[in-house]
Amino acid sequence: MNIDGNTEFVAHLGWPTHSFKAPMIYNPYFESVGVNAVVVPMGCKPENFAHVLRSVFALENIRGALITMPHKVSVVDLLDEVTPTVKVAGSCNAVKRDAQGRLVGDMFDGEGFVRGVKRKGLQVQGAKALVVGAGGVGCAIAASLAAAGVGALDLFDVHAESAEALAQRLRTHYPRIAVQAGRRDPAGLDLVVNATPLGMNPGDPLPVDMSRLEPRTFVGEVVMKTEMTAFLTEAKQRGCPIQVGTDMLFEQIPAYLEFFGFPTTTAENLRAVARVQY
Amino acid sequence: MNIDGNTEFVAHLGWPTHSFKAPMIYNPYFESVGVNAVVVPMGCKPENFAHVLRSVFALENIRGALITMPHKVSVVDLLDEVTPTVKVAGSCNAVKRDAQGRLVGDMFDGEGFVRGVKRKGLQVQGAKALVVGAGGVGCAIAASLAAAGVGALDLFDVHAESAEALAQRLRTHYPRIAVQAGRRDPAGLDLVVNATPLGMNPGDPLPVDMSRLEPRTFVGEVVMKTEMTAFLTEAKQRGCPIQVGTDMLFEQIPAYLEFFGFPTTTAENLRAVARVQY
Repeated sequence: MNIDGNTEFVAHLGWPTHSFKAPMIYNPYFESVGVNAVVVPMGCKPENFAHVLRSVFALENIRGALITMPHKVSVVDLLDEVTPTVKVAGSCNAVKRDAQGRLVGDMFDGEGFVRGVKRKGLQVQGAKALVVGAGGVGCAIAASLAAAGVGALDLFDVHAESAEALAQRLRTHYPRIAVQAGRRDPAGLDLVVNATPLGMNPGDPLPVDMSRLEPRTFVGEVVMKTEMTAFLTEAKQRGCPIQVGTDMLFEQIPAYLEFFGFPTTTAENLRAVARVQY
Repeated sequence: MNIDGNTEFVAHLGWPTHSFKAPMIYNPYFESVGVNAVVVPMGCKPENFAHVLRSVFALENIRGALITMPHKVSVVDLLDEVTPTVKVAGSCNAVKRDAQGRLVGDMFDGEGFVRGVKRKGLQVQGAKALVVGAGGVGCAIAASLAAAGVGALDLFDVHAESAEALAQRLRTHYPRIAVQAGRRDPAGLDLVVNATPLGMNPGDPLPVDMSRLEPRTFVGEVVMKTEMTAFLTEAKQRGCPIQVGTDMLFEQIPAYLEFFGFPTTTAENLRAVARVQY
């Protein structure tokens, strides 16, 4: 990477920074295609975030910002415009200036999930889906499934009010989708997503009753710590097509690249040049 | 360069950024010695500088800032503490947070010049010097010569009041140095410095009366556009030891590295790994 006076940067804002992976994915990609840009980790504590965001976007060679924990929710209220995906997800992980100088935000965590299952052959348009877990990632996936035209969405969370609140936001922004909170029966569905942390630790219970899962149902996972979680292993044994957690990560990067106006590529190419292994 | 979640950054603040050279000097050096840090060019217009400076120093992984045009003067009033060199030079090109969280500034343009002539054998302590040109770089060199213990300083500028103002600042901070403004006679001196733009263009007049220059006098140059300016060429012909303009640039970087707390090295090593040619 040859940083010089013409280099643009993408601010990667979060705290702590130690587990950041984006620099090891974007920067080797930029190098490989000759884009003069760099993702720079910037550790930012919550109390400083509002003025830091304003200031980094006052810099002339900023191309955009990747927003990560703990700022994904608080950033929403600092922006001039956000997508329905941000409004439903309740969080935002990408910010840029538009041509009028306004700060605009979008959310690609769920988009990565959706792109991945689409590329694996799932017809998302009109599909019936279940998302288990209505935390940050579950809300993001539900929001992106809605934006992609899903027909029906079942939402479940052990905190019933979280699933209900997500359902309400979906009904507001996507009145045509059949949204239902409180059920987690995988039977008869096209897509079942584990968006809970279940699977992080050995012995975790499975997110749904696997005996009710049909072989035709696509099964997706958000846990990245283990590639083949017990949930995915059992789904695969039942014949279900599956998507591993890290696919969501790599599949969302082309969406980010498009958002920031960089030349884009495939998730496979990004994986191939990344300096981080999964 | 492998930027990751543990990478620290040095903000290189100025505008425009296109002619920035520091990233191509520091970053290859950091790579060559395995320091996980990166100099990032950040284009900042004057109207945004004050809040940008405050915000970048609110980031957790900032190691410091390189300050360049047009902010070298305006930054001084934004800092909690500056060195006498900054006060005399009237400008600052390096900022860091100290252990108490205060923003402290120093100025190394002149330090680079002084380190260079010292390493070439000049005894600066007690020396009699003439600095022609009391603009930004002339003031910086005079300030660093004073900090290095020069015995007498003659200052000259075609704008007499600039030389006089610099002389006053020197007298305030270094009352023991014999400071005199308005003379540019090189006779009888240990060091003569061209700190004017004379030499940028062919046919420029020489900064001093060369017939009065003694072979024992060390001659230094700040013009970088041409390595051997007419001034240096003629001084060398007269037998004077000389220092070219770019030495000031490379010699100041070890001073910056020390200031920011990085492992330091020699100007020669920095030149050897730099991705910029002079």
